[in-house]
Amino acid sequence: MPQASDPLPSASFLPVDAALRARASRVIPGGLWGHMNARLLPEGYPQFFVRAEGCRLHDADGRLFVDLMNAWGPVVLGHCHPVVEAAARAQAAQGDCMNGPAPVLVDLAELIVDLMPHAAWCIFAKNGSDATTLALTLARAETGRRKVLVARGAYHGSLPWCTPGIAGVTAEDRAHLRHYDFNDVAGLEAAVERAGTDLAAILVSGFRHDVGRRHEMPTPAFAQRARALCDETRAALILDEVRTGFRLDLAGTWETLGVRPDLAAWSKAIANGHALAAVTGQERFRAAAQEVYASGSFWYGAVAMAAAVATLTELRRIDGTARMAVLGQRLRDGLAERASHHGLRIDQSGPPQMPLLLFADDPEFRRANAFCAEALRHGAYFHPRHTMFLSCAHTEEDIDFALDAADAGFRHLTR
Amino acid sequence: MPQASDPLPSASFLPVDAALRARASRVIPGGLWGHMNARLLPEGYPQFFVRAEGCRLHDADGRLFVDLMNAWGPVVLGHCHPVVEAAARAQAAQGDCMNGPAPVLVDLAELIVDLMPHAAWCIFAKNGSDATTLALTLARAETGRRKVLVARGAYHGSLPWCTPGIAGVTAEDRAHLRHYDFNDVAGLEAAVERAGTDLAAILVSGFRHDVGRRHEMPTPAFAQRARALCDETRAALILDEVRTGFRLDLAGTWETLGVRPDLAAWSKAIANGHALAAVTGQERFRAAAQEVYASGSFWYGAVAMAAAVATLTELRRIDGTARMAVLGQRLRDGLAERASHHGLRIDQSGPPQMPLLLFADDPEFRRANAFCAEALRHGAYFHPRHTMFLSCAHTEEDIDFALDAADAGFRHLTR
Repeated sequence: MPQASDPLPSASFLPVDAALRARASRVIPGGLWGHMNARLLPEGYPQFFVRAEGCRLHDADGRLFVDLMNAWGPVVLGHCHPVVEAAARAQAAQGDCMNGPAPVLVDLAELIVDLMPHAAWCIFAKNGSDATTLALTLARAETGRRKVLVARGAYHGSLPWCTPGIAGVTAEDRAHLRHYDFNDVAGLEAAVERAGTDLAAILVSGFRHDVGRRHEMPTPAFAQRARALCDETRAALILDEVRTGFRLDLAGTWETLGVRPDLAAWSKAIANGHALAAVTGQERFRAAAQEVYASGSFWYGAVAMAAAVATLTELRRIDGTARMAVLGQRLRDGLAERASHHGLRIDQSGPPQMPLLLFADDPEFRRANAFCAEALRHGAYFHPRHTMFLSCAHTEEDIDFALDAADAGFRHLTR
Repeated sequence: MPQASDPLPSASFLPVDAALRARASRVIPGGLWGHMNARLLPEGYPQFFVRAEGCRLHDADGRLFVDLMNAWGPVVLGHCHPVVEAAARAQAAQGDCMNGPAPVLVDLAELIVDLMPHAAWCIFAKNGSDATTLALTLARAETGRRKVLVARGAYHGSLPWCTPGIAGVTAEDRAHLRHYDFNDVAGLEAAVERAGTDLAAILVSGFRHDVGRRHEMPTPAFAQRARALCDETRAALILDEVRTGFRLDLAGTWETLGVRPDLAAWSKAIANGHALAAVTGQERFRAAAQEVYASGSFWYGAVAMAAAVATLTELRRIDGTARMAVLGQRLRDGLAERASHHGLRIDQSGPPQMPLLLFADDPEFRRANAFCAEALRHGAYFHPRHTMFLSCAHTEEDIDFALDAADAGFRHLTR
């Protein structure tokens, strides 16, 4: 481990990463597509990584970081988790993509239906976008209606109907989307009213986790009203658990609110980084799920399913969500204490397992970027705008190490 | 290996598969979603597989088959290929889903751009549908137009805009699709004319491989006219190589026709069964590819990329496409000879690496189903309606074994 008192070199001393970026820029548009493009990150953040283990990441220039992003969510037990990887290797030795699934498919589907009270069945896919899109399609198939209510600013994937971009998107791709504001009961009611008899579904994230803005847990009133509105109209309540799933409650993020979705979309942490997604649903939607054709070349692959069984079993065994809550609270308390010590006003939100750290009066994220760049130099990989992710591989010492790095970041802001 | 003279038990003697199906039917709608549901296959076909190696598949009841489907395409070097799996394991030991890609991303992108004369760049994803959808979006972004011409009956994935189903699909999902018939030059010209100044792309499969109907290679006149029409209108020629890719020509399926696409979609065989997809494109589309936001949680995963580098390198080293052509021709010649010997009229089409076997006067595929069921009992896994797939793991002896099984199938039809 690098020591917090021993800052790492700045970006200009990262020759391997720079050489890789130069090569990448020739054969990949913009050097990288999508959310992992390092140009979206503060100075000094590496683009490439050569090793990951537990909560530690190694970049191509030999720097080592305590990881607070965990691949933007998929890694929940820690990188290269021995139990998960052993299960994956054992299945890979037998077969992965065959002419049908392996028996582990049934084990996984039974495990998920057993874990989640709302779920009578599940279907597996590869991307979060596969799962959210299929959930919408199932809602439309079952109800025979078209309109879907979506929270303004929510992220549900990067297909044309939901990508935050507009390039290449046609108006028709979003013709049947209507919007409401998360946690706004009256606004949701009005949107339901406007959709009228064409309302197929209300789509809602486990909690509000829009990039760059304070995260919000659902209020009980909002969650319960969303459920009641769906019951009254026979529309589907679809919970997008792609980001939230398996970090807050293995039974489902809204379970503690006493609200169960009709359909839910899962991905990211479901197999500790192996590519997998799932749609779960109530009995009422089983016939639609049998009727709708959705499939993919790799959707029956056994290795990711074996990894998922191992991941969910291990999370249950160690009570992983509670463990991440403890670690996340330690991080939150430590950040609050250290920021206060430096006289800085910070804004922490989100559940402890999935924290967001913002700074007061920082509309362009300048403080956040400067903080992160300095914390990175001291060995902790924070994100300046996006939900961060704890994993079960963090120890109290790792959190304290990250807090020392954060302290250096806060100190830097006071200069 | 089972002997062709020693037929395997019929479906009613498959207790393990039956028990797995019974469990699956409770927690998975219809027992399985999508194209691998065994209810779409003849009697006796297993739903579950417990092992795969080279060209051999083991079902859950201990039956062993020579595999002519290769997971519906992804497996091109053979199941559990030692070189590919060694590369995957080596990368998995270092890290898979990290906070950015591993250096192998650059190696893979360079390898693909080097292999394919049309490609100036590439972007990676997870599903064939990801790749075809992104290619359409890039065409729309670059041209600022919306209409996409699609061949009637062609399969381009299972998202709402392209799924063969209609359940849950809205009219708007397909508002800007227009149709032509594959290899119909005049029809294509008319469709281009009708799309007028709103033409964004012509989307075309590497060859016509619609399920259940005679496959057709593109005629040079059709391919060249498609290219010329795109040149005249500045629309994008998009080649869907998801099924065809890496079996006919590593440089691209239309390369021997002297026709290069603007954009191409790849998946299936690219990493010998590891989940990966790619979009490649000409320089003109680089800016659009930088502008369009498309991303996924697992799209930067290093293991599938390492598997892809190993797969493509090995295919090039052993001239895998030529090898599969030899094997496929041996299968085709042998099937023709044996069918003729039994006085049966069969219809073989598709390139030798991707054969389709149909029977004359068989509109409901009854002969095809009966043939396949009997060939399966003799240890060969054929498909009655879908493109089949050779792999480099087949030997001449494996093909001859499959031919003996086919002989039993043909004989069965004459009873």
